Amino acid sequence: MFNPLLLPELREMLAEQDTDQLRAFCTELHPARTAEFMEGLTAAEAWAVLRYAELPARVEIFRYFDDAKQHEIVETVERREIGELIAALPPDDRVDLLNQINSAVVAELLPLIPAEERRDILRLRAYPEGTAGALMTTELAKLGESVPVRAALEQISHQAENLETINYLYIVDDEDHLRGVVSTRQLVSSLGKPDRPMGDLMERDLVTVNDTDDQETIAERVARYDLLAIPVVDGEHHLLGIITHDDVIDVMQAEATEDLHRLGAVDPLNTSYLQTHWFTLTWKRGLWLLILFGASLLTAAVLKAYQTNLGGMTWLVLFIPLVISSGGNSGSQSATLVVRALTVGDVRLRDWARVVLRELLIGLCLGAVLGVFGYLAVFAFEPADRIEALVIPVTLVLVVLCGTLSGSLLPLLFQRLGLDPALMSNPFVASISDITGIVIYMKVALTILGR
Amino acid sequence: MFNPLLLPELREMLAEQDTDQLRAFCTELHPARTAEFMEGLTAAEAWAVLRYAELPARVEIFRYFDDAKQHEIVETVERREIGELIAALPPDDRVDLLNQINSAVVAELLPLIPAEERRDILRLRAYPEGTAGALMTTELAKLGESVPVRAALEQISHQAENLETINYLYIVDDEDHLRGVVSTRQLVSSLGKPDRPMGDLMERDLVTVNDTDDQETIAERVARYDLLAIPVVDGEHHLLGIITHDDVIDVMQAEATEDLHRLGAVDPLNTSYLQTHWFTLTWKRGLWLLILFGASLLTAAVLKAYQTNLGGMTWLVLFIPLVISSGGNSGSQSATLVVRALTVGDVRLRDWARVVLRELLIGLCLGAVLGVFGYLAVFAFEPADRIEALVIPVTLVLVVLCGTLSGSLLPLLFQRLGLDPALMSNPFVASISDITGIVIYMKVALTILGR
Repeated sequence: MFNPLLLPELREMLAEQDTDQLRAFCTELHPARTAEFMEGLTAAEAWAVLRYAELPARVEIFRYFDDAKQHEIVETVERREIGELIAALPPDDRVDLLNQINSAVVAELLPLIPAEERRDILRLRAYPEGTAGALMTTELAKLGESVPVRAALEQISHQAENLETINYLYIVDDEDHLRGVVSTRQLVSSLGKPDRPMGDLMERDLVTVNDTDDQETIAERVARYDLLAIPVVDGEHHLLGIITHDDVIDVMQAEATEDLHRLGAVDPLNTSYLQTHWFTLTWKRGLWLLILFGASLLTAAVLKAYQTNLGGMTWLVLFIPLVISSGGNSGSQSATLVVRALTVGDVRLRDWARVVLRELLIGLCLGAVLGVFGYLAVFAFEPADRIEALVIPVTLVLVVLCGTLSGSLLPLLFQRLGLDPALMSNPFVASISDITGIVIYMKVALTILGR
Repeated sequence: MFNPLLLPELREMLAEQDTDQLRAFCTELHPARTAEFMEGLTAAEAWAVLRYAELPARVEIFRYFDDAKQHEIVETVERREIGELIAALPPDDRVDLLNQINSAVVAELLPLIPAEERRDILRLRAYPEGTAGALMTTELAKLGESVPVRAALEQISHQAENLETINYLYIVDDEDHLRGVVSTRQLVSSLGKPDRPMGDLMERDLVTVNDTDDQETIAERVARYDLLAIPVVDGEHHLLGIITHDDVIDVMQAEATEDLHRLGAVDPLNTSYLQTHWFTLTWKRGLWLLILFGASLLTAAVLKAYQTNLGGMTWLVLFIPLVISSGGNSGSQSATLVVRALTVGDVRLRDWARVVLRELLIGLCLGAVLGVFGYLAVFAFEPADRIEALVIPVTLVLVVLCGTLSGSLLPLLFQRLGLDPALMSNPFVASISDITGIVIYMKVALTILGR
């Protein structure tokens, strides 16, 4: 997407102070594209270009810069100009930004922001990250029930430029309690009846989130009810703000990333991979690695307990990695499938019996197939006795079955206990399969070989 | 959410043919909620309730039924009634539905659907699943460049009821080439200038997708440009349809699921977990399990090669699972992080050197920490020589390093080759770490113990 050829031209325009060209550059493209073209510019150069744009266009382009560039601009450009920019940013975006930059800079900037916006910033900053309160914007179209269609249209036509979204008008009473919602679609299709009051048009069955709700709730609700924006209310149903579709999409991506990281045994990051300090990454991974390491020590202990027996049948050692990884891999597959199905609502707790039955069947089939290959593999490695070689297929069937059952039941159990099923990460399920796998392997070997 | 208490009441209303109550039930709640309340009803009962609703409400509620109930209703209810319902469904939804039901039923239904809708269905069904063409709806607000604001408002006020979304008006020329787009927001804020033509208002820098583009492209573009809907065009830039926000959200969920499944070594499913036949699941998992099984055989071969040496140092066997799982786990973590970062665009190919550097550092740190614990663990299991025990920490550092490097480099390599980086599943990376882990372990042991 990024076109490095344009950079020299951009720099030339800057050097020549070519106002017309730079202004056109800032307004004629989708702001996301303009921001992309400016990717190679330094923060100082990028700001020099933005100064040619009117404030609204400047704000739009700035929003599409990556975090690093936004921070550098805010921290280096003259404070008064940045104060103006921040006051014009949508409320949710500016709070995100201020939460990420140096607090000394924030302290210098706040006095430069008009009182109303400043109060709004302080209020939103009080919400913990990932809650609806922290994600919402406070700019929305709010009307009383008695307002007629004609007046509603006029009113929002004045506000439209300033509002992030006018897909819904929110209908409130005198005390700002949310009473209903009118979509722009409904409003436009009522143009023929300009005197109809909002109270007549509005939907009363509302889907809302509480300001303290987690982003997971928001993502789930928006996806279920196909909403463009979701209103945020407090405990008394006062309308506090809305979460707009672009933030919902961001939330959904963040949630999917969190699940993926958990399944990969990484404690979820708050920032993107390259922006997370390597030491933080080490910490978030090391914690889980150590837990898994502890589990591996248990496999060592099991092997130790059977060591005297192992001495007599050295070829069993060759297949240790194969046996435990077969259990681990089939367990990871089950965990992945069940965790995701729980997240998107395809599986609920009450389906547990169906899930177990399927995993039992699937585990038997997969185990049987691997068992056949495993039996053949023994002879490839050792001139083994035909009965003795049965240790491998029998073990494989049991180990794979154990993997599919633990991989599916543990996430269900975690969900039942009110924990995040994704905590049952693939490596964690694999570790459990390692231990049970070794025990099964040794027991089966003793039974068959000890006959 | 689901309220089983309401079911007996609903059944009672049905038995008493309580028209008023049933009609109220169908219209007063959000259709998603109405559908939820009806979850416990049979397909026949659900349809009996829906018959009390007007067609638009019936369509809305029907859309929120789960797939199984939709299919059962379509396949069992009287064909003429279903034909009417299908003709009224949004074009993208009805194609999805028809693609999933018995083709004999489809053949009976098609003649009952009005000609225009039927042609539309046949056209959309020609697109392969997962492409923009298959996801788009053909109902959209389309206007010419010369239409003034006043006429545009009037025109869409008549269409609004029938259109899934009127957040954007699409401006086309006489031959249906897409020329620009006007948001409802812009239209409403131009109420004061009713004579301004669309050509003046419209944005010309458009973000579109091609009808043959994959859903991945759509999800990525919508997220990047914060769009509510994205127009679909053909090779000559004719406007074919739009993909609306609810479908985009579904696509994003489907994409995240696909990535998760790939990372968990499951070939992505086309249907939900419980709706996928257990045999299909077995197949989609067995394929990968067998590949991983093949990789495990290589570890057995490596162990076999060192078997004579292993005889002399039996305690090394105890730590085989620990060594290989440490490599596998750290590799899975790296693969998870890098694959996701590539998907959401946090990491690009040109960042490869930064990624490698970080994973090198992180691998060294993690390896060192595990090494310290590993060194201590040796003594817990065996009265080992202090120098001999060094085999474990040295191996762990090298194995973890190998895991982080292969876990991060392989997805980058796959991306470079134009393959899906998520094919580098966690179990696959773990298998590679198994083999290299065993080789490293044996080499280190021979070097230190063979001194």
